[in-house]
Amino acid sequence: MIATPRECEPAVVDGTSSRLAVTPEPPYVAVIFSSIRRDGDHGYAATAQAMIERASAHPGFLGIEDAREDIGITVSYWASEAAISAWKHNAEHAATRQHGRQHWYAHFELRVA
Amino acid sequence: MIATPRECEPAVVDGTSSRLAVTPEPPYVAVIFSSIRRDGDHGYAATAQAMIERASAHPGFLGIEDAREDIGITVSYWASEAAISAWKHNAEHAATRQHGRQHWYAHFELRVA
Repeated sequence: MIATPRECEPAVVDGTSSRLAVTPEPPYVAVIFSSIRRDGDHGYAATAQAMIERASAHPGFLGIEDAREDIGITVSYWASEAAISAWKHNAEHAATRQHGRQHWYAHFELRVA
Repeated sequence: MIATPRECEPAVVDGTSSRLAVTPEPPYVAVIFSSIRRDGDHGYAATAQAMIERASAHPGFLGIEDAREDIGITVSYWASEAAISAWKHNAEHAATRQHGRQHWYAHFELRVA
């Protein structure tokens, strides 16, 4: 579950690169959240942005990437599994996950790799 | 780099679930390809679909998820690092990666976790 150095093909550095996560050399851990939304916002957009800001300030947070088309994929990168566990147990984050399970997602998968 | 069982929150099974990868119990390995496209298709769409079909038929392929918004994120899941290595060395795939580096992407990151 800890990424190890290998085969990271060189990135072309240009002005558009700021939207990809800038991760340090491995090892680090990736949390992959894949989801299909229910119809309607139901407070999702504002809360999602707030959660990204909270996570970004958490110890061990390294970066996040997010895209939604037919499905949504959010990948966050963390320094260690301990950092992920601490963020998982953040009370506001836990409450938001519970809310999301009930209101926002028709289907989701959470994978830690 | 091998995902281990943990905290996979239960998925709601409904008719929309087919667009998320259906992965077996861990361990498995995730390949996370994050990218920013250049303008224009330049043969991308057809080739990308063909590559997904080729990968899907490769031994050890478990599933793939893909979304593009400001950035694109493609996560493929594999039974082992050996399976990833075999697909990496597939001649057609290697040629397509080389083409993509030159024509399709302004910026990308490839991470194996």
